[in-house]
Parts: sequence; C-alpha cells; structure tokens
Amino acid sequence: MPTPLSFPIDDLPVMWLRDNCPCADCRDPRSGQKLFQISSLPAGLRVEAATGIPDGTPTGTPTGAATDEAAGEPGAAASVEVLWAPDGHHSTYPLAWLEANRPDGASHGDRRTEDGKELWVAGDLAGRLPQTDWDAYLDEPGTRARMLEAVLRLGFMLLRRVPRAEGQVLAVAETFGHVRETNYGKLFDVRVEPDPNNLAFTSARITPHTDNPYRDPVPTIQLLHCLANDAQGGETGLVDGFAAASLLRTQDPAAFEILTRTPVPFVFRDAGAELRADRPLIGTDCLGRVREVRFNNRSISTLRLPAPELEAFYTAYRTFAELLLRPELQLDLRLRPGDCLVFDNTRLLHARTAFAQDGARHLQGCYADLDGLASTLAVLRRADTLEPLAELFAGAGAAEYLGESVTMAQHMLQAGMRAEAAGAPPHLVAAALLHDVGHLEGAVTGQDLMAGTDNRHSHTGADLLGRWFGSEVTEPVRLHVAAKRYLCAVDPTYGATLSEASRYTLRVQGGEMTPAQAAAFAALPGAANAVAVRRWDEEAKDADAATPPFEHFLPLLTALLRG
Amino acid sequence: MPTPLSFPIDDLPVMWLRDNCPCADCRDPRSGQKLFQISSLPAGLRVEAATGIPDGTPTGTPTGAATDEAAGEPGAAASVEVLWAPDGHHSTYPLAWLEANRPDGASHGDRRTEDGKELWVAGDLAGRLPQTDWDAYLDEPGTRARMLEAVLRLGFMLLRRVPRAEGQVLAVAETFGHVRETNYGKLFDVRVEPDPNNLAFTSARITPHTDNPYRDPVPTIQLLHCLANDAQGGETGLVDGFAAASLLRTQDPAAFEILTRTPVPFVFRDAGAELRADRPLIGTDCLGRVREVRFNNRSISTLRLPAPELEAFYTAYRTFAELLLRPELQLDLRLRPGDCLVFDNTRLLHARTAFAQDGARHLQGCYADLDGLASTLAVLRRADTLEPLAELFAGAGAAEYLGESVTMAQHMLQAGMRAEAAGAPPHLVAAALLHDVGHLEGAVTGQDLMAGTDNRHSHTGADLLGRWFGSEVTEPVRLHVAAKRYLCAVDPTYGATLSEASRYTLRVQGGEMTPAQAAAFAALPGAANAVAVRRWDEEAKDADAATPPFEHFLPLLTALLRG
Repeated sequence: MPTPLSFPIDDLPVMWLRDNCPCADCRDPRSGQKLFQISSLPAGLRVEAATGIPDGTPTGTPTGAATDEAAGEPGAAASVEVLWAPDGHHSTYPLAWLEANRPDGASHGDRRTEDGKELWVAGDLAGRLPQTDWDAYLDEPGTRARMLEAVLRLGFMLLRRVPRAEGQVLAVAETFGHVRETNYGKLFDVRVEPDPNNLAFTSARITPHTDNPYRDPVPTIQLLHCLANDAQGGETGLVDGFAAASLLRTQDPAAFEILTRTPVPFVFRDAGAELRADRPLIGTDCLGRVREVRFNNRSISTLRLPAPELEAFYTAYRTFAELLLRPELQLDLRLRPGDCLVFDNTRLLHARTAFAQDGARHLQGCYADLDGLASTLAVLRRADTLEPLAELFAGAGAAEYLGESVTMAQHMLQAGMRAEAAGAPPHLVAAALLHDVGHLEGAVTGQDLMAGTDNRHSHTGADLLGRWFGSEVTEPVRLHVAAKRYLCAVDPTYGATLSEASRYTLRVQGGEMTPAQAAAFAALPGAANAVAVRRWDEEAKDADAATPPFEHFLPLLTALLRG
Repeated sequence: MPTPLSFPIDDLPVMWLRDNCPCADCRDPRSGQKLFQISSLPAGLRVEAATGIPDGTPTGTPTGAATDEAAGEPGAAASVEVLWAPDGHHSTYPLAWLEANRPDGASHGDRRTEDGKELWVAGDLAGRLPQTDWDAYLDEPGTRARMLEAVLRLGFMLLRRVPRAEGQVLAVAETFGHVRETNYGKLFDVRVEPDPNNLAFTSARITPHTDNPYRDPVPTIQLLHCLANDAQGGETGLVDGFAAASLLRTQDPAAFEILTRTPVPFVFRDAGAELRADRPLIGTDCLGRVREVRFNNRSISTLRLPAPELEAFYTAYRTFAELLLRPELQLDLRLRPGDCLVFDNTRLLHARTAFAQDGARHLQGCYADLDGLASTLAVLRRADTLEPLAELFAGAGAAEYLGESVTMAQHMLQAGMRAEAAGAPPHLVAAALLHDVGHLEGAVTGQDLMAGTDNRHSHTGADLLGRWFGSEVTEPVRLHVAAKRYLCAVDPTYGATLSEASRYTLRVQGGEMTPAQAAAFAALPGAANAVAVRRWDEEAKDADAATPPFEHFLPLLTALLRG
C-alpha cells in the first residue's frame, strides 16, 4: 500500500533530479561531494520507471524476505526508486527528501540579503539589545547560538565583561571564525595617535560609515573591544544600513536605483598600502535584493562620469547621507571597558561622537568574516538537533533493560565505546551507539519485550534515526536483529555469547535463519556492517564497564548529520 | 596671460567639484581623508567666482612680490581658485587635476571586472607564460611587479624554484598580501589522505572548478606550491572563466543571462564546518560586467525553483559546463617540485588529472586576496614612478656643485639626512632632500650659475616635483631661495653660515630682502617650513660627511606620492 506521491515524478526536471541522486556512485559517502560532472550525464536523460519502496526495505536490497519477518509486511512508501534511461542508473530518493525539496516558488532565502534580516530603527531594539556576558557566551552553547544568530539577523551582538586584556579581541573573533588580517595588522588600536594615517586614530567625530570600503573583498565583520573609555564623548552609534536602503527605495526609488548602479571608487593610501575598490554604495544581489552597503565619506575618491550622471549621483548620494543621519535610525551606545561589539560590516554603519583628549579612550579592533560565523552557528545548532536523542538516553534509556544487568543507555553507550575502541568508522560507531533507540522511542517496556511483544525495534529505530542520519547509520541498525538470526545460523559459537534475555527474544524475532535466508542475508551489501554492530551489541552488557556519557559522542554524531 | 580653461568651470557638477576640494580644511593632509560630510555642504551651493592663478604662486598666498622676483612674472595659469557661495569657502584646483578628471564618458575601469583583464584561451599563452624564478621575483622589483600584474591581468603567475620547504607557501603569500585562514587551516596539504573530507585529498580526477564557492567572501587568490610530484598523472589545468563566460554570452545569450540571475546554493559540511553561499555561477557587477565565476560541480546543493526555471537553469548550467571542458580553453601544466602557482580564484578554474598512487604527489596550498596583491603592486610602482628622480641623483647629481666641495647629489642627500636627524616630518625631509632638483633638471651648470645666469631653480624644482608630490613638499622648495634672502635680512648671524658660492649667488637671486619684503615673507603660511629647509641646506655642504644613498629615502618619498 504505497502512499501515492503528491506529485508525479515525471513532472520533476530530470537533470535536477539526477543531479541530486544520493547513491554512493554519485556522491562520496565521506565528504558528500558529487562524483560526476553535470556534463557527463547522458544525452536524452529520462526516467524509465519510478517505483515506490515501502518502509523497512534497505535501499538497493530485494524486498523483505531475507531480513526479519516483520519487515516483510509492506509499509507506507518511504522512498522512490528511479530507473534511468538510457544509462540504466538507479537512484533512490527518500520521499521525505522529495517533499522537502519539491520544485516550487519558494527559493531558499539567501540569509546575506535583506530577505534574511530583521531590519530595525533604534526604537525597535529598546529593551532587547542582543547582549550577554562573556562568561555566559563561553559557557552556554544556547546563549552563544542566540548571540551569533543576532549578528546574522540584527547585524550585531554586544558582549559584556570581556576580559580587558590586550589582544583579547582576537580571542573573541576566534570563538566564531578566523581573523582577517589587513594593512592595519591582525588587530588595530583605536586611540589618538601622533601621526595618524586614518581619522579613526584622532579624537574627531566620525559619522556613520562602514569600514574598509576600499577593500574587495571587504571584511564582513568588525569587532571593537573597549579597554578604556574615560573620555568625555566618544559615544558609539549603530545604523542599520539595510533599513536605510530600504527606506530610500520607498521614499526615492530613483535615488536608490542610481546608488545601486554606480560604481564608486573608494581609495586608501599610506606609506605601505594603496587600496582601491569600485563598488556601489548599495550593492544588490542578482535578484535585486540589498546585500551590501558601503558608505564612507572619507574615502570616496573622484568619480568620472558624464556631468549629468555626476549631478544625479551626487543628489542621490546626498539624499542617502541625510537619511543615514536621521537620529531615529541610530542606536546610541556607550562602550564601557570590557564591552566588545561585534557587527556586520556589510550592513551596519558605525559612528562615534568627538571626544575630549583629556580622558583615555582605547579600543582594540579586528576584522573577521560572516561565512565563518554562520558556519560556527550551524555546527552549534547540530547539537540542538540531537537534543531529542540525548533526552532518550537520559530519560527512557535510564530504565531497566529487563533481563540484563545494565540499563538500556549503559548498554548502548558500551556498544558505541566497543565500536570506537575497535577503530570502527564513525558511521558504525554511531550505529552501535544508537542500535536500540527503537526500544526507547516506543512505549514498549523490556517486560513487554520479554513477554513476546514484537515492537519491531530495529525498524522503529532505523526510521527514527533517518530524521538525522543517512543510510550508512540507519541500515546497520535496521539489520541488527536480522544479523542475530543470521549469526545463530552460521556461527556455531555465537549462540553461547548471547545473554539469556537475548536467547529468549530470538524466538519472537523469528528464530535462527534457514540456510536460504542466511545466504540471502549474507548477499546484502550492508550485511557485514550489521554483523559488526551485532557483535558489539553482544559485548555491551557488562555491568562493571565504565561508560562514557552520551555527550562524548556528540562531535562524531554531529559530523554525520545529514545536510 | 592665464591659459583659458578648456571647459567652463560653471559646467562642472558643483557637488562633485566641491567634494574634491583639496584644501586642508576639507582633506586631512596626513591621511588624505575627507573631513566633511556630503550632507553638510550648504543648500544652494554654487560657484561665485573662478580665477585662473598663474604658475609660481604658492597656493593660498598673495601673488608674487613677497617671494623672489622671478616668481613675480605671471606665467601660464596653473590652477583655478574657486570662491563658493553661499558659504564663502575657497578651493584651489590644479589645472592638471581638472584636465585629468574632467567629467566625461570615460569611467575608470574596474580592474576586477572583465574590462580590466586580458582574456585568453590556452593557445594565447604559448611561449609567454607569466613565470619567473623565485630569486628573481624576490630580488628584482621590476620582475615582481610584472608577475603581480600578470595575476591581475591574466589571472595567474608561476614561480619556479621556490624552496621546497613545508609552509613555504605562506611565505609566498606574504610577499604580496595576507593569508586568508579558512576551515582548512592557514595552509592545507593536497595529497591522498586516509579519510578525506574533500575529493581534493584523493587521487581522483578533478575537472575545472573554483575553490570554496560555499564561502562568502570567497578567497580571491589561491596558491599551490608543489613539494613532490612523482606520481603518474596529476597534471594541472587552468581555464580562464571570464573568457568562457564571455564565449557563453556570445554563443548562448539566454544561458548567460540565466546563469547570472540564478543564485546557486553551494554547500560544504564536515565535522567542524557547515558553509553555504547562494551566488550565481557567473557574477556580474552593477553595470553587467563579468566579475566573478563560481563553478564547482562537487558542492552545488539542491536548487529550489519552479520546475520550468529548474529545467532552464540545468540546461544553461550544462551548456556552460561543456564549454569549460573544451580542450582549447585549458592551459595544461605539470607542476614540478618547487613550482608555486598563484591564481585568481574568482576568475580562473583549476583542474587536475587523476594520478596513480604509487608515486608521491604533495602540494601545499593557501588562500589570500586580490585587494592586498593590487595594493602591493601599486606601492611597488611608486618606486618606478620615482625612477626619474633617482636618475637625476645618479646622473646630473653626480656632477660638480661648483664652488662647493660636494657634488649636487651629496649636498641634497646631506640636507635630507640633516632634516631626518632633526626629526622633521616626512614632507620636510623630502623637501630638504629635493630642494635643488631644479639645478639638475635644467641644462644649467654650476658654472652658469656662478656666472650669474638665474635659472629660477627653486621654481623649476617645485614645478618638477609637482609631478609627484603635493604642495607640502613643493612649496618649501619653491620658497627656499626666498628664505635665504629673508634670513639675510632678519638674522645677522646667518650670513656667516653661507658658503662663498652661496654668498655670490645671493646677488643674482635679488640680494637680501627689504624690511617690507621680509615682513610679507614671514606672513606666508609656508615661511617657517621654507626657513627650516634653508637651514638644512646650509648645513649640507660637508665634504667629509657620510651620505646615505638615494634609495634610503624611497619609502618616505613613496609614502608622500600623490594619489
């Protein structure tokens, strides 16, 4: 009874579908990278046949019989197998993947454009500054994730009570990415200098601007860490350049258009550097969405255009400059010693008021990039993703594993540890660690199990794990009960390794395989992995063994998560 | 007799003209940065009056009389003084600047787009690979400049005989810029690895691609340094992606349009990173010029678009992929141990053939950025710019400085050294060093001078220096003869410090100033600087003093060069 697909497979663009084939010939199982060229797909590519494959059938294996009986019952369609013409290639697409990626009008938003941002004026952030203490940022992954998310969404975060040590700003950057060295060095000091090469190093007022517009690629993140601020004045201001650009588009569409279409020469020169970039003040992506603001009155060099275009540009430039100075747009902050401001230099403009030179004001700054920050956030979130599994181990897993002298969690942690100690590849360590999650997920107790209730735990577990992992993890789990029946049939010494409880459940699981079943099982591509997991399973019922906590396996598990 | 301006000043866009005012109130003389906001210019800005100013009159000073007589003769108009309404601001624009920057249709080309490149197919580079030996690259600034220029123009350079040391690739990058650290580290090893997170670290063939398309900003330069290459195969190929994009635009404009308008999700995932960028395969600037190619079949993730758009995208993508594989586009190289390839990762695609694992193949790579490379090249070229001055010191400067016991070059080098030893700011060290170049440039010999021929050397020198330097250098030079006449008038001890020759030339220079002339001179803004230069001038006629070579002053001089 396969569930009908909600759209005919024949309506899918063939090259798109084939380009997304997940098989091991098309994608490197280790790196996930594609192994073929789009140009090497055969001419006249088409779907020859598409077949729904029910739940419980390992990918690429003949249906049912060779695995345990329970899997023989056809379930709902879980995936679609496509036979390709003219080359005879097979692809199996999980139905969940097809549903999640079905071609429609919803493109994935590019988080770097205005579409992925929460635009703001100062009043919008009253009472909800994205700020936290350094210790909380370091110690609490959830807090850290919330802060990094704020940099992507609002354009900044403010870390308080960061140690006031020279060079500390580099350590802040390294919590989320790589420092981008520039002509100003790995870090730069913002304080009054005797022979400044930049107005930043004087006590002058600086109006809202982005940094280093003369660089291309421009540094996409800036950090400013306050070491001292006893001066009168020297307040910091932030303006959302995307909000300002959006306002300009509404109020003066012609000016917006001019500023997106006019490359502006930004120039910086000193003894050691001569930088120039020709970029518009408002950069849009290929769909016209605002993606970058460069605004720095100090370093705009001489534009060369026909006079009427120069007139129009300057009128638009001035309109935007006046808009950026509107007080309601600017969020005012006073950086206190220990504060570290981290902001999106492609979006937020920063400013400072003039200050009296009688008090010390000293910031240290550095640059970094948004791509690294977004990556760090995504990796942090993988741990959140696995929270439900961690909870199963802590909750249901702590319960009796009836008939055994260990809890279910201890049993699985031991199995993972055994696999790890044996030098198994990560996906088999994960499979060993998670092989019995099917027991934890259902409301079936160990007693139910002993009483002969078949909860099909290997399939329940494999299906559950499919939320996070690919078939390299799920299929050994799916087959680990069949592997027991197989081993009983082919390995005379194996039966002796089974615990009493395990020997008992063998019966409800179908008993040892017939020679024909065993031969069919052995022929499965995943048989060896399933047997390996099964052997670690048997070894993992030692009441005296020390077991690592679930968290020990998190890095390994997060690395295996599906994209 | 001012030369008429070749265009009426009133036709110039007023905000553009005012935004380029070079005065010290509008631009920081040290950093060259603008000191005002475009939004702070008064409403109704207009040119009230424009006056041609003849050659020889220091900016902002009353015409003629107070300086030496020769300058009193009106010359051709050298600059235009503008009086602004309604705020009464004064701006002085050198005529040469106005001519060079006159508003017209010729915009400065953006060297990062196809407009600034020499596009190529493999055959175009036969016999003219941009390559040199490491030693020549290091030792010869001209060779280094030619190589860096090749990276900007052709997209790559090939350095031969680079020491085969681990980490050497970082030293190569640091000759022109800053290393961009990524998830692969500061440097990465390209060799076969047991558990690769990227196909680069296998022996598989890799078709033409750009690196790290999932990064944004993408690293704009890649370096690959060959430490060993004994394997069968493993040849390197380079394809000019801008040339390929240009070909696509000609042959299939619709496909070109689709590839510039479709953001493509590029994704990379491993245990420590999860990177994603949504960028078109062919990126254009805001004027539609090709500016960036991203092409990497391995890391294109799943596009979500309506089915007809997916069909169209895949057809265009395949067309471009096939084009990129045309053999005539690909330059084939075999990297030998010691070779270091440096290439533009926003433009050139690189490839390698498969190789047999029986021979060692080991490259080390790192990333850097084009902006830093272009800056390094521009600074290198400043030295070229000063070559004519260096030649004056070596040529005419080596000649007698008649009546003195030193050559002209020794005299000027000593003056520069004296200024430097006195802790003078760079522009006065330069003025002291260069104060007598007027003697060298003209065909006037020391004997001519002694014979009373006035070659107006202070003005000749100041005008000559105006090719390279601003008024902070040229005006002390222009006034250094007047300063002698002034000092004779006001400092009774000064006359005794003059050499015999100098006392003699005083007569042909107009003799000591009258009290009225001296008062007018002292009121000039540049008088103090001119007097300082004059005193170093008198101190610099010591036959026994060791003098540094002209090259000693090059960094100081290049830092003072006008943009």
